[in-house]
Amino acid sequence: MLYVVGPATNHQKIRTNRETIKMSILVVGSVAFDDVTSPSGTVKNILGGAATYFSLAASYFTQVHVVAVVGEDFGPEQEQVFRNHNIDIRGLERAKGKTFRWGGSYTDNLNEAKTNFTDLNVFETFHPQIPKEYEDTEFLFLANIQPTLQANVRRSMNGVRLTGCDTMNYWIKGTPKELAETLKVVDVLLINDTEAKMLAGEANLPRAAQKVLAMGPQALVIKHGEYGATIFFREGAFGVGRHPFRAPSLPIEEVKDPTGAGDSFAGGFMGYLASQKKLTRETLKRALFYGGVMGSFAVERFGTERLQSLTREEIDARFEIFRELTHLE
Amino acid sequence: MLYVVGPATNHQKIRTNRETIKMSILVVGSVAFDDVTSPSGTVKNILGGAATYFSLAASYFTQVHVVAVVGEDFGPEQEQVFRNHNIDIRGLERAKGKTFRWGGSYTDNLNEAKTNFTDLNVFETFHPQIPKEYEDTEFLFLANIQPTLQANVRRSMNGVRLTGCDTMNYWIKGTPKELAETLKVVDVLLINDTEAKMLAGEANLPRAAQKVLAMGPQALVIKHGEYGATIFFREGAFGVGRHPFRAPSLPIEEVKDPTGAGDSFAGGFMGYLASQKKLTRETLKRALFYGGVMGSFAVERFGTERLQSLTREEIDARFEIFRELTHLE
Repeated sequence: MLYVVGPATNHQKIRTNRETIKMSILVVGSVAFDDVTSPSGTVKNILGGAATYFSLAASYFTQVHVVAVVGEDFGPEQEQVFRNHNIDIRGLERAKGKTFRWGGSYTDNLNEAKTNFTDLNVFETFHPQIPKEYEDTEFLFLANIQPTLQANVRRSMNGVRLTGCDTMNYWIKGTPKELAETLKVVDVLLINDTEAKMLAGEANLPRAAQKVLAMGPQALVIKHGEYGATIFFREGAFGVGRHPFRAPSLPIEEVKDPTGAGDSFAGGFMGYLASQKKLTRETLKRALFYGGVMGSFAVERFGTERLQSLTREEIDARFEIFRELTHLE
Repeated sequence: MLYVVGPATNHQKIRTNRETIKMSILVVGSVAFDDVTSPSGTVKNILGGAATYFSLAASYFTQVHVVAVVGEDFGPEQEQVFRNHNIDIRGLERAKGKTFRWGGSYTDNLNEAKTNFTDLNVFETFHPQIPKEYEDTEFLFLANIQPTLQANVRRSMNGVRLTGCDTMNYWIKGTPKELAETLKVVDVLLINDTEAKMLAGEANLPRAAQKVLAMGPQALVIKHGEYGATIFFREGAFGVGRHPFRAPSLPIEEVKDPTGAGDSFAGGFMGYLASQKKLTRETLKRALFYGGVMGSFAVERFGTERLQSLTREEIDARFEIFRELTHLE
């Protein structure tokens, strides 16, 4: 596929070449510059943000459209990262001021970042505008932004077949009512153990999962960091089945930078789904494995470095390793 | 099989009936009385101890012989629990005084117990004596006791084909030299994440695993609590294979009492191995699943209640659920 980010005619071309625009996903979230310190070193001003990690991870599976805001410091070099992966950035709003900046440190416990600074900058007043051409995209991912903005985006898209959504402790605690409204209009919520327990007010994971599902989503993906992820289904959602499903994570010898692992997971998960005709439980299970695979690649290098240089062959080879990791003959 | 704990003639009978004594396992460890408080309630003076949980879990797979010490408060009622599972308690030493007692509490975080009291009692001077009839048992499990005692037991058994071993932070910190000697004579070490990282002095799990394997064991099982377990192999041990293997754990809605989960895991793991003719990587992988299965049953009721009332059919049904939990078509 030869896709150049540009006028609508190119977009049309994709429609024709790939037969349908259904094979695409729209992500709304942050694009940022990050400073990261981990036991492996320190990097400054590297391209980051949930929408960036998500887009790059999903780009190996499907056409990605991005809606985000950047400042005047976002230049051709950063744009090129998206272009190299045929990511459609017509929805990237340019605002006066600086791009969102985040600084974090990881010590030996690579599971948790210590935030050193958060400069929201242009992100502070971000109101996502969905370009007309994106409105009939069939897959949507609402990365971690204010819940009402998430819900508004969802409502402005008429043809969406499946909506994935992320959130965080800040919104769970600070805007629970708004978040509850958002959860009514999303299909799959992807959060981690702590967030799930906090959202449900319940310390037991499967019971917490049932409570969260009762809030709206058809499926709930709980990410366990280095231990993989579990997907819980509403009864009857995506077919029949009694039990949740768990995908492992590969034990990785060198985790250089865990930043963006969750967003890369979401990109692999949602990107794979957007590439599938049927959304069955089996599809969602495979998506859970692909999520783990993309998360495992992301942490091997600082920032998006590893996600920028992958091949689909490498991804599928690691998928097989993940499968073997828990496969009994 | 009709096996009554009693004189050596019965033991001989087993040898004849089952063709070989190879289908048995010896466990050396603690038998205790526990007081446990969890969000589900409080129980007092219930039968516990690593050797008890291990024996009951392993008894569904193989003949179990126990070496432990109990006090005068250990009566016919407790004996009957072992007898009901054909567990050979001729190695159960009766000493003057009280049996080992432990009290612990679990709050919402069921992964960690707060120890309220530890009365070693007769366990304080325990020096395991291996009955002559046990010496050619082919499988051995050294539950969590002082490392030199563990090594002495191993050395006194000539026909052992596979030795499993547990330990804890107390010995890792307090008697590292003694533990290092023990690790040279065991085949499979079963510990949790924190213990593995402490033993290796390394925060990264797969790197910690490599360091622990270099200390002696052929395989290392790292238990992740509610997230399952991973087995790492020395190169060439138990056949060929590049990667570790991970078994999931079933998300359980009601965890009543996590006490003994690790020992039940070890009982399922080692018991299954002792029932197998060949020890291949595939056998060890299945054993890892059976370990998780027995651990998941143990926590459903206080103490050993659930382990006392199982059937092999229930165990195999849950094994299938565990398999489905990560199985892609």
